Amino acid sequence: MGDDPKVVSADGFRSDGAAALEWVARYLEGLDQVAVSPSVAPGDIAARLPAHAPEEPEPFATILRDLDRVVVPGLTHWQAPGFFAYFPASASPPSVLGELVSAGLGVNGMLWSTSPASTELEMVVLDWLVELLGLPDHFRFASEGGGVIEDSASSATLCALVAARERALRGATLDRLTLYGTSEAHSSLPKGAKIAGFAHDQLHSVPVLDDFSMDPSALSRMVAEDRAAGFVPCFVLATAGTTSSMAFDSLEQVGAICREEDLWLHVDAAMAGSAAICPELRAFHEGLELADSYAVNPHKWLLTNFDCTCFYVRDRRALTDALSVTPEYLRNPATASGSVVDYRDWQVPLGRRFRALKLWFVLRTYGATGLRRHLRNHLALAGKLRERLEADERFLFCAPPALDLLCFAHVTGNAATEQLLRDVNDTRRVLLSHTVLAGRYTIRCAIGGAWTEEHHLDELWEIIDRLAPPVSAAAAGAPSP
Amino acid sequence: MGDDPKVVSADGFRSDGAAALEWVARYLEGLDQVAVSPSVAPGDIAARLPAHAPEEPEPFATILRDLDRVVVPGLTHWQAPGFFAYFPASASPPSVLGELVSAGLGVNGMLWSTSPASTELEMVVLDWLVELLGLPDHFRFASEGGGVIEDSASSATLCALVAARERALRGATLDRLTLYGTSEAHSSLPKGAKIAGFAHDQLHSVPVLDDFSMDPSALSRMVAEDRAAGFVPCFVLATAGTTSSMAFDSLEQVGAICREEDLWLHVDAAMAGSAAICPELRAFHEGLELADSYAVNPHKWLLTNFDCTCFYVRDRRALTDALSVTPEYLRNPATASGSVVDYRDWQVPLGRRFRALKLWFVLRTYGATGLRRHLRNHLALAGKLRERLEADERFLFCAPPALDLLCFAHVTGNAATEQLLRDVNDTRRVLLSHTVLAGRYTIRCAIGGAWTEEHHLDELWEIIDRLAPPVSAAAAGAPSP
Repeated sequence: MGDDPKVVSADGFRSDGAAALEWVARYLEGLDQVAVSPSVAPGDIAARLPAHAPEEPEPFATILRDLDRVVVPGLTHWQAPGFFAYFPASASPPSVLGELVSAGLGVNGMLWSTSPASTELEMVVLDWLVELLGLPDHFRFASEGGGVIEDSASSATLCALVAARERALRGATLDRLTLYGTSEAHSSLPKGAKIAGFAHDQLHSVPVLDDFSMDPSALSRMVAEDRAAGFVPCFVLATAGTTSSMAFDSLEQVGAICREEDLWLHVDAAMAGSAAICPELRAFHEGLELADSYAVNPHKWLLTNFDCTCFYVRDRRALTDALSVTPEYLRNPATASGSVVDYRDWQVPLGRRFRALKLWFVLRTYGATGLRRHLRNHLALAGKLRERLEADERFLFCAPPALDLLCFAHVTGNAATEQLLRDVNDTRRVLLSHTVLAGRYTIRCAIGGAWTEEHHLDELWEIIDRLAPPVSAAAAGAPSP
Repeated sequence: MGDDPKVVSADGFRSDGAAALEWVARYLEGLDQVAVSPSVAPGDIAARLPAHAPEEPEPFATILRDLDRVVVPGLTHWQAPGFFAYFPASASPPSVLGELVSAGLGVNGMLWSTSPASTELEMVVLDWLVELLGLPDHFRFASEGGGVIEDSASSATLCALVAARERALRGATLDRLTLYGTSEAHSSLPKGAKIAGFAHDQLHSVPVLDDFSMDPSALSRMVAEDRAAGFVPCFVLATAGTTSSMAFDSLEQVGAICREEDLWLHVDAAMAGSAAICPELRAFHEGLELADSYAVNPHKWLLTNFDCTCFYVRDRRALTDALSVTPEYLRNPATASGSVVDYRDWQVPLGRRFRALKLWFVLRTYGATGLRRHLRNHLALAGKLRERLEADERFLFCAPPALDLLCFAHVTGNAATEQLLRDVNDTRRVLLSHTVLAGRYTIRCAIGGAWTEEHHLDELWEIIDRLAPPVSAAAAGAPSP
């Protein structure tokens, strides 16, 4: 052991760290010039990488060089100011540095006792957010509930489903339980239901109204019919801001049905939830006091890098009863005392990163005031683009514009809209994505990038305006579907 | 919008980043002096934090000051060289910097098309690891299989369970399926089974042999009996290096039964798997060619920070058939062509961080040679402590010492062992954890910390030697159980 390898050193971390930090800073500086999406075919990047791991150590500078040479040309740049696809990346300097510090500390908060401050900071920050977003008090730790950071809203939905299922299994067998959500609910609902052991036909799709929100009377009818047929309704997923079109299910009406029928109500507010930090935008949370669980993703619109989903439950015992398994090697006096939160019982994995740090860094660096200003700025940018689209006869909105999302199409039909999206994205200055709403091919434009400024929206409009054909030409070239 | 808030800037990232980097460097420099575990009671840390989020922005320096003042005193320092509990933290400078770059890039590789290089680098690095660890070729992408990075071995077990369940459901109903693992299997097996909708009595506990490994003949018998009783056996979890005692189930014997009975064999090699990078330590992988899936955690023993579990499957279609749900807004030409890997279909969440970067950084920074030297050094350190314990009449091994794990007890019984563990941990210079093996309270000592050197093992032995009572005194004070 005389040849102790000294594989790690703080000085090595310092020097390589300075290089990595500068690399990231330059990457961020260059975001405005980069092609938003890469021009690569499947296998292109893999072909540029060696087939075998290196046998001998390589200098850090070589790795950073290959990052530039091989990796970056194959990336879609989610933080580029022209990225309007899917949902915003929402990374910010303090969140990235929170991730750095978390990785540097390397603690694992699976149990309170395995790193107490990791758990307690998370509890406090999640309580802060209840207040900032105006969530019901029953999601605070002072009540019977509480919050936890999950990796994604998908995992939050799965955990809610499992808790609801376990509660319902006291009075029924698994194959009799039924779940409800609309066709507009996120794909993590059918995926979570499948993972949790539900058959495809146990998830019932509730019709939507014209604005793509859940039809509460249809839910009510379906629940009654299912009960009459011998099923045991157990779980409803309501969405506050759907992925496709930012539709808001009425939490008041859906919640009233859930209360009356004793169904677990999970509210998925993955993107929209962050907007509730502005009191004037909070109306979509009305009825949330009826919810059993709730998820919002600061990694979508609150300046926090992925992954950071805040998941709240009304009854933390229902969640931990469903997810707690304690082997001998994890027993400890704090857990036995019942006086601590062990977050492993709030999630699928056992281990966990110290993710509360980055949220703490963000909330403190910007303050509530700064975060509100940030979101209001996005809404102003979205409003300006909305006006331009509204004033132009070539476009129609496929769903009511809401918050940071605009869903529009070319009035002449799907072919023109699809072609326009391809042409716009082929500029590689911007990237938009698509959905289909009531059979109409729809361009989705989500405005929430941390680096997106007014002139980027101007450029986006200039590109759309230039590439969208006039109504007459498009109508002649491609008949409406 | 004239008052654009400019919430982010590369220069701000540079200056705050330098401060964060220096903070982490100093933290790492101080690891040798720190109290490994904190002296705090539940609620202590929370009480030192404000009850409300700040309304106005705060300077980064203030946040770092509070990190020192409030957070650090409440941490268990997983990277401290005296940390021998649970499993090693295994963070290293290149892995931490890989996490920094990943957060800085902020790309989301849910689909190949949402950031192609993120997916392809992960595929290549996972293929590299197949070769480095001597895993069967059927886990490479060139075959029908492939690998993915999950957050934890728990999630890998869940994904394997769901894939096995879906395959078995073609010929049976969920309530007839049965699963198998030993009492020594990780707690993520019963937890995963519960999440996946299996009732408690569908998971059958296979007896272990004297070395705590699975009794293959018992498995064979149980499967036959369950079939005779009308059940449909579907899944076996074999462990290559159990959490409690580093016991190795015979993959050859268990695998032969699984092949004959058409059961999905998942091999959990969370901690031990990394040792296979040294060819002379690979014997425990014999029979792995019979496995359907396999998981190893570089975040446990391969210098990579949590989270980084490498999960391999023989038949990637079995996995993606079980986990794929495609809404319109995620459809894209690359996916439709069938020529790409979309990693969202390999995991529970939809979104994903660019975790391959940190593993790439680690494999290149150390090279295979450096990683082998690192592991061999730990084994030499473990060997030296083992000799000391062996030569001392006060101690006995509760399980055969294997790789980096020593399981020992005071010969006079549980009371003396429990007291010794408390006394040793109360020094706060070191931290060990415990388990129970065949009714015997057992001290677990896992030697794999990146910062742990020979003199730390000497200090650990000095502490144990000083605090362990002589056989006569302990026997007089506390009778054997």
